[in-house]
Amino acid sequence: MSETISARVAELGHALPDPSTPAANYVPWVRSGNLVFISGQVPLKDGQCAYVGRVGEELDVETGRKAAQLCALNVLAHLAAAVEDDLSRVVRCVRLGGFVNAAPGFGQQPVVVNGASDLMVEVFGDKGKHSRAAVGVSSLPRNAAVEVDAVFEVL
Amino acid sequence: MSETISARVAELGHALPDPSTPAANYVPWVRSGNLVFISGQVPLKDGQCAYVGRVGEELDVETGRKAAQLCALNVLAHLAAAVEDDLSRVVRCVRLGGFVNAAPGFGQQPVVVNGASDLMVEVFGDKGKHSRAAVGVSSLPRNAAVEVDAVFEVL
Amino acid sequence: MSETISARVAELGHALPDPSTPAANYVPWVRSGNLVFISGQVPLKDGQCAYVGRVGEELDVETGRKAAQLCALNVLAHLAAAVEDDLSRVVRCVRLGGFVNAAPGFGQQPVVVNGASDLMVEVFGDKGKHSRAAVGVSSLPRNAAVEVDAVFEVL
Repeated sequence: MSETISARVAELGHALPDPSTPAANYVPWVRSGNLVFISGQVPLKDGQCAYVGRVGEELDVETGRKAAQLCALNVLAHLAAAVEDDLSRVVRCVRLGGFVNAAPGFGQQPVVVNGASDLMVEVFGDKGKHSRAAVGVSSLPRNAAVEVDAVFEVL
Repeated sequence: MSETISARVAELGHALPDPSTPAANYVPWVRSGNLVFISGQVPLKDGQCAYVGRVGEELDVETGRKAAQLCALNVLAHLAAAVEDDLSRVVRCVRLGGFVNAAPGFGQQPVVVNGASDLMVEVFGDKGKHSRAAVGVSSLPRNAAVEVDAVFEVL
Repeated sequence: MSETISARVAELGHALPDPSTPAANYVPWVRSGNLVFISGQVPLKDGQCAYVGRVGEELDVETGRKAAQLCALNVLAHLAAAVEDDLSRVVRCVRLGGFVNAAPGFGQQPVVVNGASDLMVEVFGDKGKHSRAAVGVSSLPRNAAVEVDAVFEVL
């Protein structure tokens, strides 16, 4: 593995987005003890929400999966800030929460959220294997297709 | 109390399901420090989702309560794996998250999620008393009626 | 800052609600290590849910923001119980979860949940800056407009 999170992500053909700055009285991440809690991320790219609408209606499942991956890249951008981009300080991904903008009856949240889960394992190997909850929600900020929050254990 | 979680559950007239294996890059539970984070569980029985549909529409509240109980049994199956089925290693149930597949205007999420909460107290006594959040969601994996995730403190 | 949470809240022109007693087998808060997990709070005032209905439909965004603030006051009432109302024992607000009762297509969850976030910073200053997730849900207990849960680090 590479020594930095951003280089590891680049090796996989992705780029870390610029970490977003919340326009409100909260912060992208908080460290408490060895846990880093990362705020819910929508699929921002260059400051725009790149995937808008309901998965299973306006967007197909594969597109939802890509949205979840982009959420996860935003999660990693904030994690990198929390550990000074030092890959060796990431003990493991503890938990992902995946919220999918989805209509009643939609049941493929797991496939969608795999876009985030797979990226964690690609980046961190076994340390990327996490617990998770995946649910369908009625709406999301900016009408985003997916939102992902996370907890990591770090050094 | 019995010495194992599975025996304690059996005394109450229930059986721990076989722990499900996620078909993706996540795991049923992760331990970080003294906390065990358990992935969101749908009401699986013998590998099938036993309660499908919206509570308050296709399913009544009492059926939803049973679904939440079955979710909680799946939570306990994974907890048992995390502590080698040793009841004495469970310090307490810290938090349950209850997601109820429910239509707009439905307001009885607490009654539904009590199916999970009551089981925790039956199994663990005062150590089973937890914080929780109960919300209604637009849809769930496999169109399950309920999903429950959990955090436990363990030795 | 004042020495107690309740006095600090009063200085800001608010009052801590009486801490609600869950009518079920869960508790308003659980401490594990230095973390206090607070159960999801709906906007209760004098035992009644003061804000009912969907934000963006029955209630406007500003009313939703007030509902989130009242949820946060209920969170603080339980936090005060957890630390014997001692402001100096609050290390920081680690995380807020904001669930907004909202219709498909609603995208202003962040503005609504700011009602809770802003209060945390008013009460605790920089220690009030937290990670958060804000999502839209199909329904909430008592048909509440908003539900907020929280994690704090305490001494």
